[in-house]
Amino acid sequence: MRIIRDPGRLNRLLKGVSRSGKSIGFVPTLGALHPGHLSLIKQAGQDNDLVVVSIFVNPAQFGPQEDLNKYPRPLKNDLALCRKHKVDLVFLPDQKIMYPEGFSTLVNVEGLSRLLCGVSRPGHFRGVTTVVAKLLNIVSPDVLYLGQKDAQQAIIIARMIKDLNFPVKVKVMPTVREKDGLAISSRNEYLGGQEKKDALVLSRALNLAKVLIKEGVKDTVRIISRLKQLINKNKNVKIDYIAIVDSTNLKPLKRVGGNCLVALSVYIGKTRLIDNVIVK
Amino acid sequence: MRIIRDPGRLNRLLKGVSRSGKSIGFVPTLGALHPGHLSLIKQAGQDNDLVVVSIFVNPAQFGPQEDLNKYPRPLKNDLALCRKHKVDLVFLPDQKIMYPEGFSTLVNVEGLSRLLCGVSRPGHFRGVTTVVAKLLNIVSPDVLYLGQKDAQQAIIIARMIKDLNFPVKVKVMPTVREKDGLAISSRNEYLGGQEKKDALVLSRALNLAKVLIKEGVKDTVRIISRLKQLINKNKNVKIDYIAIVDSTNLKPLKRVGGNCLVALSVYIGKTRLIDNVIVK
Repeated sequence: MRIIRDPGRLNRLLKGVSRSGKSIGFVPTLGALHPGHLSLIKQAGQDNDLVVVSIFVNPAQFGPQEDLNKYPRPLKNDLALCRKHKVDLVFLPDQKIMYPEGFSTLVNVEGLSRLLCGVSRPGHFRGVTTVVAKLLNIVSPDVLYLGQKDAQQAIIIARMIKDLNFPVKVKVMPTVREKDGLAISSRNEYLGGQEKKDALVLSRALNLAKVLIKEGVKDTVRIISRLKQLINKNKNVKIDYIAIVDSTNLKPLKRVGGNCLVALSVYIGKTRLIDNVIVK
Repeated sequence: MRIIRDPGRLNRLLKGVSRSGKSIGFVPTLGALHPGHLSLIKQAGQDNDLVVVSIFVNPAQFGPQEDLNKYPRPLKNDLALCRKHKVDLVFLPDQKIMYPEGFSTLVNVEGLSRLLCGVSRPGHFRGVTTVVAKLLNIVSPDVLYLGQKDAQQAIIIARMIKDLNFPVKVKVMPTVREKDGLAISSRNEYLGGQEKKDALVLSRALNLAKVLIKEGVKDTVRIISRLKQLINKNKNVKIDYIAIVDSTNLKPLKRVGGNCLVALSVYIGKTRLIDNVIVK
């Protein structure tokens, strides 16, 4: 496994790989790798000749009041996990090489970036699309692997790729969960013992939504109201949003139908967690 | 010479070209090809195995009050010129395939895009950088050819390419002029007989700037004031801006030094013309 810090060097190396006819699978991460990331890495390995993982805590996608500084950076463990899962190349740039002095270009997906998580995290998705555009140009992968847990992120990146004609396929892999149902996230580390139990309300609420929809409830206002009731029973949990939207354009649905995304964001203490499910 | 309208098809074809080890030179245009464009095409042919020219009147870079509809579109003549100058591939997309329903991604170079021409053309450079990002992803050229006449455009595109890590070199070719000094531009077509004579004030003013600088005048306020005097003698010409700026970051200079860009924009009747010179 090679670790490369210089974008230009990685690009030249991977251009050679592409020219030799080998396919490249790419998994961009903020590090703090967990089974969710590993499922992407495994899939990338199954689908491609070469697997590239980037580890970069991207400051552009953190708001000024957010957790950039405390975000976990267990680099040694991350690299061991990459080695174990047969990653070929780890791209490990520093902030200065990604955002040198004079940097001033932003890539923004208008509309989609303001909805759902975009309400409480203004600028977040613009930071994501900007860094992903950079990474796609550096790595030139054949396939980009993203996790369904960050549903809105995956939808926005897919939109950017289509709009800007990036020649790459996107594969979105299912959310990986703990046995108790909690969606695995690097931010779960912030949770104390009781908070981890409180956080189960996310997957329980999504299960309730699935049950209601299976029972034939179509009215999204009614479903959302039932979810609110369930979540509000726990006084330690504060709802950020509950949304039932079209899974391609994030438009709110009045009635369940087509591919609909049920998405939640709640605060457990100071930690903001998200989860979602797609119901067909 | 092949004419290709579909971005996906062009991308697959050119990927094959790259994989075979051939280099691609790319000249993006709005059509209405003139000797300025042809100098880029010739240079691209000298430097590369394959030359791609795009012809696309990009609506995203025209303001609502601007000349999108009357912009010249002499397609037959453009294609003949491409054939004559041994272009290998012409990319000729339509508006719908470049900006399909739901399109919502914008690439913006902050700061630089608001200066000089950006003042009277808000959104213009964002339209340029967005379409160039698309074209670079579709064509994946080794070298991108731009004209010095659109100095700010070249600076902004180079900034975007650096910031977003597009793996492409930029070559900026000198402005091509009529014998009388008028910088060649597709918009010169809008000028009537007297207006074409009035337009000579642009190159005359730039020549005056060069003379003053050669004589040792360093104070940019003084130089600009002399240029204003010269231009204002002609009542048919209205100054949009006169600027003496650093040619890398467009910051106004108090004193001439380093690589300085003297840039002008004036209205001749309803036609807005630009010209510039770099003084070392």
